[in-house]
Amino acid sequence: MIVVRGPSDETGFSESLARSLGAELVEAEHKLFPDGESYVRVPADLRGETVVVVQPTYYPQDKNLVELMLLADAARGSGASRVVGVAPYLAYTRQDKVFRPGEPVSIRAVLRALHASGVEVLATVEPHSKGELGHFPGKALGVGVMRYMAAKLSPRLHDPLVLSPDLGGVERAREFAEAIGADFDYLEKHRDRVTGEVSMRPKTLDASGREVVIVDDIISTGGTMALAARLLLGQGAKRVVAVCVHALLVGDAYAKLKTVGVDEVVAANTLPTPPGVQQVDVAPPVADAIKEVLGSG
Amino acid sequence: MIVVRGPSDETGFSESLARSLGAELVEAEHKLFPDGESYVRVPADLRGETVVVVQPTYYPQDKNLVELMLLADAARGSGASRVVGVAPYLAYTRQDKVFRPGEPVSIRAVLRALHASGVEVLATVEPHSKGELGHFPGKALGVGVMRYMAAKLSPRLHDPLVLSPDLGGVERAREFAEAIGADFDYLEKHRDRVTGEVSMRPKTLDASGREVVIVDDIISTGGTMALAARLLLGQGAKRVVAVCVHALLVGDAYAKLKTVGVDEVVAANTLPTPPGVQQVDVAPPVADAIKEVLGSG
Repeated sequence: MIVVRGPSDETGFSESLARSLGAELVEAEHKLFPDGESYVRVPADLRGETVVVVQPTYYPQDKNLVELMLLADAARGSGASRVVGVAPYLAYTRQDKVFRPGEPVSIRAVLRALHASGVEVLATVEPHSKGELGHFPGKALGVGVMRYMAAKLSPRLHDPLVLSPDLGGVERAREFAEAIGADFDYLEKHRDRVTGEVSMRPKTLDASGREVVIVDDIISTGGTMALAARLLLGQGAKRVVAVCVHALLVGDAYAKLKTVGVDEVVAANTLPTPPGVQQVDVAPPVADAIKEVLGSG
Repeated sequence: MIVVRGPSDETGFSESLARSLGAELVEAEHKLFPDGESYVRVPADLRGETVVVVQPTYYPQDKNLVELMLLADAARGSGASRVVGVAPYLAYTRQDKVFRPGEPVSIRAVLRALHASGVEVLATVEPHSKGELGHFPGKALGVGVMRYMAAKLSPRLHDPLVLSPDLGGVERAREFAEAIGADFDYLEKHRDRVTGEVSMRPKTLDASGREVVIVDDIISTGGTMALAARLLLGQGAKRVVAVCVHALLVGDAYAKLKTVGVDEVVAANTLPTPPGVQQVDVAPPVADAIKEVLGSG
């Protein structure tokens, strides 16, 4: 088995994955042509090998996606017996249905394109919704990592209250909390009809005097997380830790979180993060999921 | 039939194509999410329609390619009876074979991905080589436009000598020349074994005193074209016109051509070009090719 580090992996995910899989690690060659087209090459003999290509697809999403397609084509064309694509962060998961007529289901187009270019098994970390990977024509692995991250973070937490920013994410909060025997709840949003001001508080529990962990799958612009942290600190929370899997942290999102008083920002290593963010290496559970599916196949 | 103008078409290609096809023109809605993902939408009722999506895939190639995939998905998902993708300029055509082991056939990956996302018929202008479109699993149209461009330019040319910059492109020079009853030849390159200096001259004809038209499919950095023009003017050519289909003109390529004395730069409207470049609208022959394949299908 060979793990190929794609050009967008800058967090050590490939190295860790190769170690967990007991596989050889190969760095993909990469350059840009003067006109902006990507060139990639896998400098290894891939004949008869299971080839695992690691390429997270954060910004620039489209370049990273196309390079994953090119690497899959290269692996298949070079005689790999099986091509596994690993996009620790998978782009376009939020356009997973038609919200207004005339829209694409973007993740469907992306997943079909990845399959057509040679990805037979696709692994990603903590999918946004349960349904999105169903659009992949091959075998898709959506590896949940909330329990794994909770166990890794447990020594640094003290009887925390685990909160989801909304009802939709409460399952993640539950998984995280159960893994460390903590309470969990979700934040309910109220908008004042007169002032328009938004308030949020835990549905049933009280944050006062508690260490609070807010868990989400993605922090993008950080707006929701910053608002929640500010309000919870106002409600007497002792400390707020923001935990997410995919820390996109667009623009000044990280500064925004620190400014409102978030004590720690924790994320998985599915994409690069600013200095200061604590990274949890989630390659081991991804390796386990890959081993299981390859073993069963 | 509905022609959808994709966000990367800035040359009026879609409008001209719709006119030639007698089709309705619809502008795709387009925005970027804060994290850099593309959003597209086709604001029209596409049910039962043949939908022709126009999206040239010049820089940023990968974004433009992914948006073409999203638009094809949107059209198919909206009930279009047939989806035709038109990429007047098609990216990744130059990596059309494995030059070194471990490389992808990039154009194969791209064409398979476009098909998987919903493009059933793909039309492009003046493919780089004859073979590349064979990788498209659907029906592919490579519309040659040298004769068409020659006829359009004919009134501005005076008994020109038509040259290909190399033997590989001589077929294009022949087509251009035959359409206007002109001479043609190709440039032969010599490298001085002592000084390393490169010289080029027409294989059999003499450029001295002639108006010279150098024709190529793509001008990228403009290096070859600039060298050829400089040498031909040194050999007594009266005037040099640079004609290409796809004027990528990376960086200062246009300035480079003007500096060495190229009198006119002419290109098709397959992608946007700097002010000063004469554009020839090649949507009409593309419309003819589409009408033919749809009629026969």
